[in-house]
Amino acid sequence: MDADGDRPNVDRERLREDIERTAAFGDIDADEGRGRTVLTGTEANREAREYLVARLEDAGLDVRIDAVGNVAGRWTPDSADPAAAPVAAGSHLDSVPEGGIFDGPLGVYAALEAVRAMQDADLDPARPVEVVSFTEEEGQRFASGLLGSSVAVGERSVEEALALEADDGEGGTTTLESALEAIGFRGEGRLDAGAWDGWLELHVEQSERLTDAGVPVGVVTSITGITHCEAVVRGEANHAGATPMGDRTDALAAASEFVLDVERAAEAVAAADSETAVGTVGSLDVRPNATNVVPGAVEAGVDIRDVDRDAMEKLVSRARESLARLERERGVETEFRRPFDLEPTPMSDRVRKAARDAGEAAGIETLDMHSGAAHDTMHVAEVTDAGLLFAPSRDGVSHNPKEWTDWEDCATATRVLAGALADLAGA
Amino acid sequence: MDADGDRPNVDRERLREDIERTAAFGDIDADEGRGRTVLTGTEANREAREYLVARLEDAGLDVRIDAVGNVAGRWTPDSADPAAAPVAAGSHLDSVPEGGIFDGPLGVYAALEAVRAMQDADLDPARPVEVVSFTEEEGQRFASGLLGSSVAVGERSVEEALALEADDGEGGTTTLESALEAIGFRGEGRLDAGAWDGWLELHVEQSERLTDAGVPVGVVTSITGITHCEAVVRGEANHAGATPMGDRTDALAAASEFVLDVERAAEAVAAADSETAVGTVGSLDVRPNATNVVPGAVEAGVDIRDVDRDAMEKLVSRARESLARLERERGVETEFRRPFDLEPTPMSDRVRKAARDAGEAAGIETLDMHSGAAHDTMHVAEVTDAGLLFAPSRDGVSHNPKEWTDWEDCATATRVLAGALADLAGA
Repeated sequence: MDADGDRPNVDRERLREDIERTAAFGDIDADEGRGRTVLTGTEANREAREYLVARLEDAGLDVRIDAVGNVAGRWTPDSADPAAAPVAAGSHLDSVPEGGIFDGPLGVYAALEAVRAMQDADLDPARPVEVVSFTEEEGQRFASGLLGSSVAVGERSVEEALALEADDGEGGTTTLESALEAIGFRGEGRLDAGAWDGWLELHVEQSERLTDAGVPVGVVTSITGITHCEAVVRGEANHAGATPMGDRTDALAAASEFVLDVERAAEAVAAADSETAVGTVGSLDVRPNATNVVPGAVEAGVDIRDVDRDAMEKLVSRARESLARLERERGVETEFRRPFDLEPTPMSDRVRKAARDAGEAAGIETLDMHSGAAHDTMHVAEVTDAGLLFAPSRDGVSHNPKEWTDWEDCATATRVLAGALADLAGA
Repeated sequence: MDADGDRPNVDRERLREDIERTAAFGDIDADEGRGRTVLTGTEANREAREYLVARLEDAGLDVRIDAVGNVAGRWTPDSADPAAAPVAAGSHLDSVPEGGIFDGPLGVYAALEAVRAMQDADLDPARPVEVVSFTEEEGQRFASGLLGSSVAVGERSVEEALALEADDGEGGTTTLESALEAIGFRGEGRLDAGAWDGWLELHVEQSERLTDAGVPVGVVTSITGITHCEAVVRGEANHAGATPMGDRTDALAAASEFVLDVERAAEAVAAADSETAVGTVGSLDVRPNATNVVPGAVEAGVDIRDVDRDAMEKLVSRARESLARLERERGVETEFRRPFDLEPTPMSDRVRKAARDAGEAAGIETLDMHSGAAHDTMHVAEVTDAGLLFAPSRDGVSHNPKEWTDWEDCATATRVLAGALADLAGA
């Protein structure tokens, strides 16, 4: 920071306007709160991306779109060596179906606001600063999650990513490449997170620990490991009226036992082994899904997480055991796949220190805590020093229109982000 | 029947060709067996209807399409008084999603084959004979079931039926009227089942009682009562990783208990009260249905049936009690609706006798039995003398590509149908 003690001067209303404008893209009619559905390659996604590009350019940043649609805006002030490895910050613009307005956009626009605040304060960073929005963090259409960052860290090739397929909403399929081309965001090259000197993401906490502790900003120590499993249960579709109870192999009744087994196992492991462990059956697809047909097949999507790898493996084993029991007791056939798995990820000590110091310098209390949610930062941490900040979530709610973070809390966390970025960039 | 002892001469291969040609419309790729998906107003439905109209005309029948798409072909031989109330027979052409090829088409084409057989045998019926295909028996798109027959018996008005809405498959909605217009089957007037002297439907049994008894044709004594209920369970959608197990109100876990409660209640009532009672949760729609989101809401479709009204009411009460318990124990909110309810329906003694006599005359054994499935005949029985025949279902399977009835069994049951129709029509 400059010797004259200037600190980045975060403008709460400017940040708020960007988040509220973004909230209008893909907005849904919610009974309570403000919701949006922004899936990769949709019209809402195009609008959100175009607004971001315009705002990055308004602030004088050089914008680049890579081949998988990752957006990066680089600020290279006169004080910086253009060849120096930049410090980067950001998050994502996509949402889950019927999600909230802060999950993702807060981190993207806080990063931009941090740059604008540094500009307003005439800070002189020695490194360029990059504002980043990764493609499809939520994994709702083309991949299981963290798509754009998986390419940016080299874990998945550009070609592999572009060939990923999804429903086109009209009975056919489309590729990520076609979907990005359709919205004008199939760029060139590959954003390389390994070229960054450091990375910092601000995100909503999605739980109530900050509120419970009365602290406005969390500094993450470690991000949870995460496994996604797919369980298939096959019985026999049959007429609901003409098939006596004793002659049925009902796939939904069997799958219902599986849902409850996963819930019970997670409660038991959280009570006895690792209190941060969670297990969820979040999706259930029933076939043929008609009131008057005994269900013939069910596919369940299972999410298992913990910062303790052993606890995760225990939950996966319990899910497999449940299916084996259902085969024995109900005569169903089952399959179990595990298409997505990430180890727990510790955060960089250097970046954590920059965040704590920035809080202290601004008179803002910070709290060390783990992240129970996956974030692109999990990937970025594989290739550079990475950190993650949390802003409080009202009632811990997220992935829901009732997700809320007070505007002052957004600004407070952005002040810590801006201070840490200024420090890391050598301002 | 004629004094010379001529009997209708059913042609098995002619019947088989009509059913196999119909099976090609909306056919699906099944691992085993032959399946089809024919929903009202789709292209497959148009093809199946156009083929029927052509076959009716080939046999010299006068074809009429009513305002809700019911198809009727009338044979008025020289021997018949054109003003006499006709005897009618038929079934439906639509299917459940991924259903079988006999459920519906067998009854339509057996009725047509019965007329052709009477023609071939130079029978001289005193009444016209009408071959009928009702719109949307399965209730998969616009209504809960038995749509066309509900209009034909005056239970639902033409206007009300035409205004029914459904998904248009492109994110919007369409009405029955628009869907029928699109496939060219929005006719005029109303087919009036009350004008018929009698009615007889042939259908696949959809259970294994005929096979178990070694009898080729069933004569139904009574059709089951049927109730459809919709149960809604509301919890709180939340992040699957950031929400500790103890902080959740998981709508899917609660709904899973409901599914198992309905199953247990039906098993108990079938064991203790009425062995024909069945209860099924056939559909489950989860919101937002994403692996990484704790489910916020679930809607379940429940099917409850029995020939004993008290047993049905007991099952409905148990389902309501389950939801009340889940509200208390899991903190969810619930709703319960009962949009569809039909009393058990006894069949006409006169029509049953005609069927038994026809079997005896042809040397074909028949078995008195109840129907656990709903059929358009439930409606028709409200306005005229109605009967229902069953042909054997292999392994009792239906609403599934593995649904199967041997061609010889189809022909044998059609012989009983033809003999009974000839008797009822005064041939």
